[in-house]
Amino acid sequence: MNNDITNSLNCPVPKNDYDTIVLAHGGGGTLTHRLIEQIFKRYFSNPELNLMHDGAVLNVEKGRIALSTDSYVVSPIFFPGGTIGELAVNGTVNDLAMCGAQPTYLSASFILEEGLPLSELESIVVAMAAAAERAGVKIVTGDTKVVPRGKADKVFITTAGVGVVPPGREILPSRIRSGDTVMISGTIADHGMAIMSVREGLEFESEIQTDSCALNGLVEEMYAVSSNINFLRDPTRGGVASTLNEIAQSAHKGIRIIEQSVPVRESVRSACEILGFDPLYVANEGKLIAIVAPEDAEKILAVMRRHQYGTDAAIIGTVVEDHPGVVMLRTTIGGDRVVDMISGEQLPRIC
Amino acid sequence: MNNDITNSLNCPVPKNDYDTIVLAHGGGGTLTHRLIEQIFKRYFSNPELNLMHDGAVLNVEKGRIALSTDSYVVSPIFFPGGTIGELAVNGTVNDLAMCGAQPTYLSASFILEEGLPLSELESIVVAMAAAAERAGVKIVTGDTKVVPRGKADKVFITTAGVGVVPPGREILPSRIRSGDTVMISGTIADHGMAIMSVREGLEFESEIQTDSCALNGLVEEMYAVSSNINFLRDPTRGGVASTLNEIAQSAHKGIRIIEQSVPVRESVRSACEILGFDPLYVANEGKLIAIVAPEDAEKILAVMRRHQYGTDAAIIGTVVEDHPGVVMLRTTIGGDRVVDMISGEQLPRIC
Repeated sequence: MNNDITNSLNCPVPKNDYDTIVLAHGGGGTLTHRLIEQIFKRYFSNPELNLMHDGAVLNVEKGRIALSTDSYVVSPIFFPGGTIGELAVNGTVNDLAMCGAQPTYLSASFILEEGLPLSELESIVVAMAAAAERAGVKIVTGDTKVVPRGKADKVFITTAGVGVVPPGREILPSRIRSGDTVMISGTIADHGMAIMSVREGLEFESEIQTDSCALNGLVEEMYAVSSNINFLRDPTRGGVASTLNEIAQSAHKGIRIIEQSVPVRESVRSACEILGFDPLYVANEGKLIAIVAPEDAEKILAVMRRHQYGTDAAIIGTVVEDHPGVVMLRTTIGGDRVVDMISGEQLPRIC
Repeated sequence: MNNDITNSLNCPVPKNDYDTIVLAHGGGGTLTHRLIEQIFKRYFSNPELNLMHDGAVLNVEKGRIALSTDSYVVSPIFFPGGTIGELAVNGTVNDLAMCGAQPTYLSASFILEEGLPLSELESIVVAMAAAAERAGVKIVTGDTKVVPRGKADKVFITTAGVGVVPPGREILPSRIRSGDTVMISGTIADHGMAIMSVREGLEFESEIQTDSCALNGLVEEMYAVSSNINFLRDPTRGGVASTLNEIAQSAHKGIRIIEQSVPVRESVRSACEILGFDPLYVANEGKLIAIVAPEDAEKILAVMRRHQYGTDAAIIGTVVEDHPGVVMLRTTIGGDRVVDMISGEQLPRIC
């Protein structure tokens, strides 16, 4: 079993009887096993997975673990800067990191549409293996189902994961205090506009790429300098606006944001203007919002900016006692407006 | 939040703006939150889930945990004796139990097709909540995605779960010894034929029902009388034949089965004959195969038969040194034949 992802990329794909997924790949028999051997075990190989039981048994210390899951249905499955594969790995890694957990083990479950080229599945699995390696997690168990042509759309992936929450870390809305600082780890709306620019066939001077990445390393850096991190969440579907509304409502506090301080790439801003989107509502896949004690904000910001996934980190606002449950934006021209939760579906199948 | 499943069934469904799933239910905004409140939190309610973070934080003791996942794409989603909902809960509970684990927490991730009636989703969620209660597990986190009409088929559910493996329990192919006894916990092929009889519009004198149930309680009873349980697996897709082949191959042992000793309901046997299926290859969703030390076989069989999900348990064969990797069947008429792993797709979308 080849456990070296980089080398694996240079190897020819093992000869398979089929070039595309057929229903029998999901039948639990010979073809299912061949698919597992030739694609999944080939790239995800690790001792726990290789036992090929229906579940993986893992050692844990007494304490707290986090459990999280997400399904990925993004369309297209390949897009600038990424694939549905690393999205599925990074997304669950990030959900765990937002619980203050150190992600350790992931499961990966595939729903494949009959007719999916095996080469596309392989590219996705290679991307997942690489993303797992970067994030320091192992994919230890999984499942594959196949549905007839027209009953799914190429591939849907559901990842679940467990992580260990070190003592002392508590991410709870009830920890959020008035006066706390609201921070973002970088530019917003990259992922959503990367998907939309492909779908709309737009070309910009500089290609807009997904920001999909694993944020667990960044979170560790932040905890290394402060234990006053009161809340973390990654603003995915619904964007920064919806996430801040969720936080304001669950904490029963108001949130005030300064529009000018929210980092947006110029190319992304242009794309948003052309397509009529507000970047505050566009999905991110590699950003986090942190609510921290004000006295620690500057040192947390400093370590974030030194991290590769936090170079554009910024303080964007404050938690206030006024207007509980409501997010207010101080606009660039100096006015104040309410930022609502997204109500409709702005961008279907963004993740 | 109403945590009583039985009572909830008698309550009117809260008024929703929509009777069917729309894309915005997956948008991460207001409608997503309403769906979570009115369907998922309503029935799955528990302290961990109610925090509504992207992951759940759980306490564990030092030791071993098992992680497992499965996706469910069964068609139809409602069938005699069950729905895709309890299948998804019981399936992951059983995968954990087959690791020797005591299942504790589940995640549930939904991929919904635009146009799915909310009432159908509600019935499925009610079935999941009831199944979780029966199995003694909590659904603590989840996700919902919506895809446009024609890009999925009503609803796909992926569950993942964690369980605690008590000290001393080891389910490993390497523990299987020649001379070990092969047991099954009850009649085979019920689930597969329940699905097929609906699909084919067949009516039998007695309706064939799914055997979907949670086997963790049965496994605990077995461990209570013996620590010589060397291997456990639930024969789902591909049936008993494929599962025994997997076991024989991973243990590098032969397996001999006596056809007459394998319990099959009369109605199921008739349905198999009419439709041309071999019950050994038809899926089960509430049965387990146990490979145990021969000296403990009778006492394990006795506790299985006293359990509601093991009344028809039987000793069906033996592990042998001969023909490693091969499963041989002594037929009713006295001949011997090789039982291969299923090669094609006998029954698509059975689970």
